Amino acid sequence: MYSIVILGTGNVASHMFKALQASALCQVLQVYNHKPESLENFKKFTAVTTSISELKQADLYLLCLKDDVISKIADQLSTLNGIVAHTSGSQSLLDRPNSAVFYPLQTFSKGSKLDYSKIPFCLEAYSEKNLNRLKDIAQSISTVVFEINSSQRQTLHRAAVFVCNFTNYLYAIGEDICNKDDMPFDILKALIKETADKVQTNSPSQVQTGPAIRNDQTTINKHLGEISNTNHKAIYKLLTESIIKKYDKL
Amino acid sequence: MYSIVILGTGNVASHMFKALQASALCQVLQVYNHKPESLENFKKFTAVTTSISELKQADLYLLCLKDDVISKIADQLSTLNGIVAHTSGSQSLLDRPNSAVFYPLQTFSKGSKLDYSKIPFCLEAYSEKNLNRLKDIAQSISTVVFEINSSQRQTLHRAAVFVCNFTNYLYAIGEDICNKDDMPFDILKALIKETADKVQTNSPSQVQTGPAIRNDQTTINKHLGEISNTNHKAIYKLLTESIIKKYDKL
Repeated sequence: MYSIVILGTGNVASHMFKALQASALCQVLQVYNHKPESLENFKKFTAVTTSISELKQADLYLLCLKDDVISKIADQLSTLNGIVAHTSGSQSLLDRPNSAVFYPLQTFSKGSKLDYSKIPFCLEAYSEKNLNRLKDIAQSISTVVFEINSSQRQTLHRAAVFVCNFTNYLYAIGEDICNKDDMPFDILKALIKETADKVQTNSPSQVQTGPAIRNDQTTINKHLGEISNTNHKAIYKLLTESIIKKYDKL
Repeated sequence: MYSIVILGTGNVASHMFKALQASALCQVLQVYNHKPESLENFKKFTAVTTSISELKQADLYLLCLKDDVISKIADQLSTLNGIVAHTSGSQSLLDRPNSAVFYPLQTFSKGSKLDYSKIPFCLEAYSEKNLNRLKDIAQSISTVVFEINSSQRQTLHRAAVFVCNFTNYLYAIGEDICNKDDMPFDILKALIKETADKVQTNSPSQVQTGPAIRNDQTTINKHLGEISNTNHKAIYKLLTESIIKKYDKL
């Protein structure tokens, strides 16, 4: 059984708490946040603290924190014996022997239910021993566990911004366009799902559709004329030009 | 039983052929294309022709054609009695009494399997009688059938370019970024799926995540420094700025 202390109470922390509590191999001993009100949702289930000096001895300290405080908080844990792992996609492995990375490559929103068994966990540690312990923990949650170095993880994080964060923003533009003309966003949901499903078994480059790949200037100009929002218009233009260039139809 | 002639042999035509052949209420009598080689895949299953003058009498002529030839081909069908419906998202209802629209709001690629019962069909016709016949046909394929006017359809088509065509292009950028660093694109697939699943029950505006909505300039600048492809960099910049503006964190 691995004993775990979670530092942080945001979206990642909440989901990691749920996933680790459900694992037969793990026990979350304690959750830390400097603000007591953030601990409200956790204190029914485990011990909580607002003070670093009161952290319990544990096998793993999981830092689900904003990138810019990870290093500062890790400094304060230097006297503890457990592994100190952060969950960030973009932060390098810290320069301490017990430092590690436990990065779940997924988008976490409060209230959305997730199948944790399918989340890819990207792990990194200095020693084989620490890496194996993190593997045990990750494999008790998920079937998809990788050992990945900091540079590879940063590549994945950059790619994730495009396929997840930016994609969600395009969905939001679709919703705005529908709302403006009193159409329900619901009608686009099957299309959104199929677009994501299609690339589960096909390369996205091979299944590109739409006016841009056909270099259909009539439709492209019609759309540009109809879009009134300046941001949306700039995005339509830039993405269309990029697709035309990619498929060399200029 | 509705008799149907399909004009066109591209992705939409192929999928409409399959969907209509599977419907207990419809029979595809014939498929037309001006190039004989394009008819190869159809002639095992139904009659085919390369000549408009040889089209059979049918209840519905389904024009699965490129936008710029729809009107020209429809002109040549003016002596026929059936409904003449096109499948385009952006073309208006033609100015003839038997004109109609039978627009499937989905992305069609050759070889990808689709659950036709979930495709939203957007219908438009001049007469109640023609509309009801199209409804019969569409409802024999799908459970999601809407009557929608040309302006609403064009709105949906514009939104579809963002949530489908542009989204797929962002997936392709994700794949490029992975390939460049020898990482498998596979590792992003769970994230892509969850991003699409999340908006099935949430408004995308409410579940935006990532460095831009946090206005995390350290990560944003780090990513911009790491992206070498000029197009990808311009897209990263524009989408990030738009997200920051939308959530008013400038």
